[in-house]
Amino acid sequence: MNKNVAIQVGILGASGYTGRELTRILSKHPQADIVYLGTSSAQGQKYYSAYPELFGYPVGELTMEDESCVPKVDVLFCAVPHGIMAERAADLLARGIKVIDLGADFRLKDPAAYRFWYGDSEKTGQVSQTGVTGLPDNDLDHPDQENLSQAVYGLTEIYQKNVATGRLIANPGCYPTATLLPLIPLLQEDLIEYDPIVIDAKSGVSGAGRAASARTHFCQVESNFQVYGVEGHRHLPEIEQELSVAAGEPVTVSFTPHLVPMARGMMATIYVRTRTDVCEADLRRCWSNAYAEAAFVKVLPSGLWPMSKHALGSNNLFMQVRVDERTRTAVVVSVLDNLVKGASGQAVQNMNVMFGWPEEQGLEFLSLWP
Amino acid sequence: MNKNVAIQVGILGASGYTGRELTRILSKHPQADIVYLGTSSAQGQKYYSAYPELFGYPVGELTMEDESCVPKVDVLFCAVPHGIMAERAADLLARGIKVIDLGADFRLKDPAAYRFWYGDSEKTGQVSQTGVTGLPDNDLDHPDQENLSQAVYGLTEIYQKNVATGRLIANPGCYPTATLLPLIPLLQEDLIEYDPIVIDAKSGVSGAGRAASARTHFCQVESNFQVYGVEGHRHLPEIEQELSVAAGEPVTVSFTPHLVPMARGMMATIYVRTRTDVCEADLRRCWSNAYAEAAFVKVLPSGLWPMSKHALGSNNLFMQVRVDERTRTAVVVSVLDNLVKGASGQAVQNMNVMFGWPEEQGLEFLSLWP
Amino acid sequence: MNKNVAIQVGILGASGYTGRELTRILSKHPQADIVYLGTSSAQGQKYYSAYPELFGYPVGELTMEDESCVPKVDVLFCAVPHGIMAERAADLLARGIKVIDLGADFRLKDPAAYRFWYGDSEKTGQVSQTGVTGLPDNDLDHPDQENLSQAVYGLTEIYQKNVATGRLIANPGCYPTATLLPLIPLLQEDLIEYDPIVIDAKSGVSGAGRAASARTHFCQVESNFQVYGVEGHRHLPEIEQELSVAAGEPVTVSFTPHLVPMARGMMATIYVRTRTDVCEADLRRCWSNAYAEAAFVKVLPSGLWPMSKHALGSNNLFMQVRVDERTRTAVVVSVLDNLVKGASGQAVQNMNVMFGWPEEQGLEFLSLWP
Amino acid sequence: MNKNVAIQVGILGASGYTGRELTRILSKHPQADIVYLGTSSAQGQKYYSAYPELFGYPVGELTMEDESCVPKVDVLFCAVPHGIMAERAADLLARGIKVIDLGADFRLKDPAAYRFWYGDSEKTGQVSQTGVTGLPDNDLDHPDQENLSQAVYGLTEIYQKNVATGRLIANPGCYPTATLLPLIPLLQEDLIEYDPIVIDAKSGVSGAGRAASARTHFCQVESNFQVYGVEGHRHLPEIEQELSVAAGEPVTVSFTPHLVPMARGMMATIYVRTRTDVCEADLRRCWSNAYAEAAFVKVLPSGLWPMSKHALGSNNLFMQVRVDERTRTAVVVSVLDNLVKGASGQAVQNMNVMFGWPEEQGLEFLSLWP
Repeated sequence: MNKNVAIQVGILGASGYTGRELTRILSKHPQADIVYLGTSSAQGQKYYSAYPELFGYPVGELTMEDESCVPKVDVLFCAVPHGIMAERAADLLARGIKVIDLGADFRLKDPAAYRFWYGDSEKTGQVSQTGVTGLPDNDLDHPDQENLSQAVYGLTEIYQKNVATGRLIANPGCYPTATLLPLIPLLQEDLIEYDPIVIDAKSGVSGAGRAASARTHFCQVESNFQVYGVEGHRHLPEIEQELSVAAGEPVTVSFTPHLVPMARGMMATIYVRTRTDVCEADLRRCWSNAYAEAAFVKVLPSGLWPMSKHALGSNNLFMQVRVDERTRTAVVVSVLDNLVKGASGQAVQNMNVMFGWPEEQGLEFLSLWP
Repeated sequence: MNKNVAIQVGILGASGYTGRELTRILSKHPQADIVYLGTSSAQGQKYYSAYPELFGYPVGELTMEDESCVPKVDVLFCAVPHGIMAERAADLLARGIKVIDLGADFRLKDPAAYRFWYGDSEKTGQVSQTGVTGLPDNDLDHPDQENLSQAVYGLTEIYQKNVATGRLIANPGCYPTATLLPLIPLLQEDLIEYDPIVIDAKSGVSGAGRAASARTHFCQVESNFQVYGVEGHRHLPEIEQELSVAAGEPVTVSFTPHLVPMARGMMATIYVRTRTDVCEADLRRCWSNAYAEAAFVKVLPSGLWPMSKHALGSNNLFMQVRVDERTRTAVVVSVLDNLVKGASGQAVQNMNVMFGWPEEQGLEFLSLWP
Repeated sequence: MNKNVAIQVGILGASGYTGRELTRILSKHPQADIVYLGTSSAQGQKYYSAYPELFGYPVGELTMEDESCVPKVDVLFCAVPHGIMAERAADLLARGIKVIDLGADFRLKDPAAYRFWYGDSEKTGQVSQTGVTGLPDNDLDHPDQENLSQAVYGLTEIYQKNVATGRLIANPGCYPTATLLPLIPLLQEDLIEYDPIVIDAKSGVSGAGRAASARTHFCQVESNFQVYGVEGHRHLPEIEQELSVAAGEPVTVSFTPHLVPMARGMMATIYVRTRTDVCEADLRRCWSNAYAEAAFVKVLPSGLWPMSKHALGSNNLFMQVRVDERTRTAVVVSVLDNLVKGASGQAVQNMNVMFGWPEEQGLEFLSLWP
Repeated sequence: MNKNVAIQVGILGASGYTGRELTRILSKHPQADIVYLGTSSAQGQKYYSAYPELFGYPVGELTMEDESCVPKVDVLFCAVPHGIMAERAADLLARGIKVIDLGADFRLKDPAAYRFWYGDSEKTGQVSQTGVTGLPDNDLDHPDQENLSQAVYGLTEIYQKNVATGRLIANPGCYPTATLLPLIPLLQEDLIEYDPIVIDAKSGVSGAGRAASARTHFCQVESNFQVYGVEGHRHLPEIEQELSVAAGEPVTVSFTPHLVPMARGMMATIYVRTRTDVCEADLRRCWSNAYAEAAFVKVLPSGLWPMSKHALGSNNLFMQVRVDERTRTAVVVSVLDNLVKGASGQAVQNMNVMFGWPEEQGLEFLSLWP
């Protein structure tokens, strides 16, 4: 494979699933070279000791290094627990390193919202990213409000221009990506009502991360379907923030995530009411216009319904809609691979935009099927 | 095991999954003896040739017989494609055989609804029970409107008194059972609004039956999450019929089924709006009262969320609710095993009620975990 | 359900999978009442807090108690990590409590073998039951050699007479059960050679227990097939001990376990050489004779091959054989549910024999399918 | 992505899984362009109608054409049922088209073996590639013995020189690839005994193809582990043929395939006896020498055991070995993705070699994990 390397990149949190997915993509990216793999737990080990399937590949032979010793790279991808990048971003940016944060620290523009949902990092340190069972106390302010205000929310198709000039990208969560891409154009064009919006979302287990826990035990998940986070999931404020921007007024949604017995993949089934006289074709036309130039957003032909596996291993998001005239309910379905378009793939897509490259560069691989 | 046999039972459609589940339950029922296994495809074979795990059991040694030669049993369980029992029930009833129909032929009270959803049996003969992709033409009337009007809808907890005196039981579908048991008491007590009602349902694959098809191929289902029947699923009119009875006026719902990579199990996540001043505790109290005497309906303590696997192999339905005060949305979650409470278990429960036995007789087995 | 309770039983290690399976079986056993659930981690909690699907059942309402305070029950089932019962059995027996140990402490008759495989309980405390990656040091003797010598190896079909008079039963491991029941009669009748014997075994994940670990993470197991314990698995000496008894001389085997992406179930594929002039029918005839009276050992008709799911939830072991005349190799296949015949079901079967009851009492439930 | 297209390729059997995998790889191959997708069942449809996840990609927009109208391409990949290419290859070769046959028609050099295993194409037309339950009658000779004798067995690492000059490549089966690559060097260097050789193999379900059948029904496969083909699997003679070549004398093996509840992936666990004085390090050294230049054969460091998922989506084969000194048994474990190195990936690897390109071209993608 011919590389024409232009930049050097590093990965914080390389030993997690998101980090592993970044290495899969970046090690074949034609213009980027991985020079640093940071870890909090496996310093000094070869990367293949964590991921034996990479034995013999250059990235597999890299030694994982301490998370605190980031070299001067062009871009640093950060896949670490929330709270860490809020503390560290400023210094990295000051060193001229562009930061793409796959965590949550710079997604919520409202410091009060951040404080409410992520404020007590001590108490919530053990809480998995996939849910909270009790809301945290609200005693910690965001430590870097300057960069918070300048960070770009990296939903690439929506904020492409801002990403192009950004130095700190807040890469969206997987649920928000699956929800926002179908809904934002519909709200912008005022084709649907703002209330009620019901988001029934289903995710594979890799979204919960690599840490072993009772909830990710195979015997707990296999042949089982679970609901979680009904009391409040941290992706909710992120979804409402961006829907409100699109609507031009505050939007409140009902959002309920579920766990599917599969490693990767995500579906959002979204129930909204159409504005009077808006029909199914209007919604589809809106999407087609909005995403005419988007390499990764696929509006399926009418009648073809997306499955989560359609996106497996690819950076694609597929979507479809049907309006039930009886109830004036539009059923919107979107799917993606939570580790690709829902995390690492979108992060690389943002890198491409930041450097003025085609957004699909290094991301052109097709879905694996079956 | 001591049996005190009181009745003889037969099973039509014994070679399917629902038939197999009936044999699991009935062969250990203390008062019923299986004397007839009817099949349309495997006449003359021992039952264990279809189900080798039953080799050596009395039921496994039974020979499957022609579906058209039903002996004079006390009860006949019918697990055959729709359209067949509508033709055959009258004759069986005339012979003094009680009929418990696990199919759809006597569920819809409105002949027009039956005609709309099931009317063209020729065209829809191949359509799986789990979905229709194009609605059938409406050219076939129900052939037995007399028995249709006398049939008892066998949602045991709701229609127990009618079941007790019934001779023809229309056993409910799995999705309706999962949906109706939580919603009916809330509507009867007027605790929730009638509109919108959004039912996002998820089922294991056994609901699609034993026939091989592209949609049930392992590689199509594994590690995959699918939506189907968005254009209209045959369980929708059944749900609306019974919700309308409970509400006392026509209720229209949005119902979207999904397919989960698991063999058994079902969850319904239901989004409704509470009436003004109705809180979470009111909903839970309503359920507790409604199901105080119900052996199989389990209202979980607050905060414990049901998983589909909780019901595995048992006749239980578990339910839980949370009201989001921000959106006044009650998120109702119910789970069951689609082959037990969603089909064969409820059928046996109905048999128990018909004969004046305790409803839990022969159904007391606990869930399998994990 | 009519109970005719004769004895009181307790369970040590009630919160684990084996303990949970014991409660499923024993709570419906017609002559036993569960009066004690011991736990090392969840004292004071209702059992349903660990297993919500038992909410509303008597066993679910029991409070889990400290493992060290065992009341005077008739039988105590012990499902705790190895090393513990070796210390505690003597005292329980002295109190007149019959002990059925589902762990490994009294299985190996040779104290040296015990010391080699289980000797260093400190170091191996964290090692899961399913495998060792480095063999333990050999510095701990068995603390109770008197009871070790009197313990009965509870492979019910083989040692039924000893079990009947036993007070301390060493319930076999799942792999040994799957391997020994087909092989012992063949060795006893000298139909197969003693060398080579290759056992390629495959297990569901519940055999690794309920503790969360990297190896039981859903994303590690799903859509994956793994080999483990190639360097030595603790069930190996147990297998060799009993095969040697059957053969009348030391037998050495090659045993390799694998992990299948399923929660329950086990298959052993065993490769042995037949003695000269021994044909397939001879092997099948040997089995039929040996297990003519055995309720749970099913020799399938020729050509029907067992699947692991055939045994799901039942106490059955299915077996089949084919002799390849080209290589004189007999391929023996056996399956069972590792939590039932491979653990808790066999334990209850042993209890039945100890009390002179029919061995199948309370164990007559059929397999769940699908 | 920059393509530097050198050749045009076509695919026969494009609608099957192997065909789909070829499109995944070839559509991103830098020097090949897909210009023809042949099908026997879906003529005239866009490829995305069979595989919606390819909607919007050039390959997805191709129209599937009749299988009998192959244009003049440089290479034709053939993924059709056996019997067809035996009839059609001669004509294609005469037209100057290089043929890479992913089926079995040119693998067995001995016409008698072909006749025995594949001879009765009428009767075995419906038999899936994964097994035969009764051996076919032996009444059909291979219709093209000239090309049979000139075909190159496309196990790339072993027959690279012959592939380079070949015009008709018989691409190996998945089980043979997993078995032969580890065993051939050991036999060539005479490090292991020729008898017994026990191959216990496990495959994901995609190996059985896309056709719906009882054996591939999700509910039959999920949470289940099955053995099949014990009476004889068609990959057996292919394995014995190539092992015999390596050993220089006839080798007979015991080969038993199993079905794992996963879509992709394969493991072979192989039990052989080492020659006297041969130790584990000798075996590993032999492999390291044999595959020093092989891009896709990964001999893992001692102690790291391959899992089937290590190969997911990649063209890699991973292997490992341990010698048990007690029994002088070497346990050899190899894994691959049955659709990549076991089928379509190896086919593309062979194409690369035929055209003098680096063998890894277009195959450099890393495994997907998790």
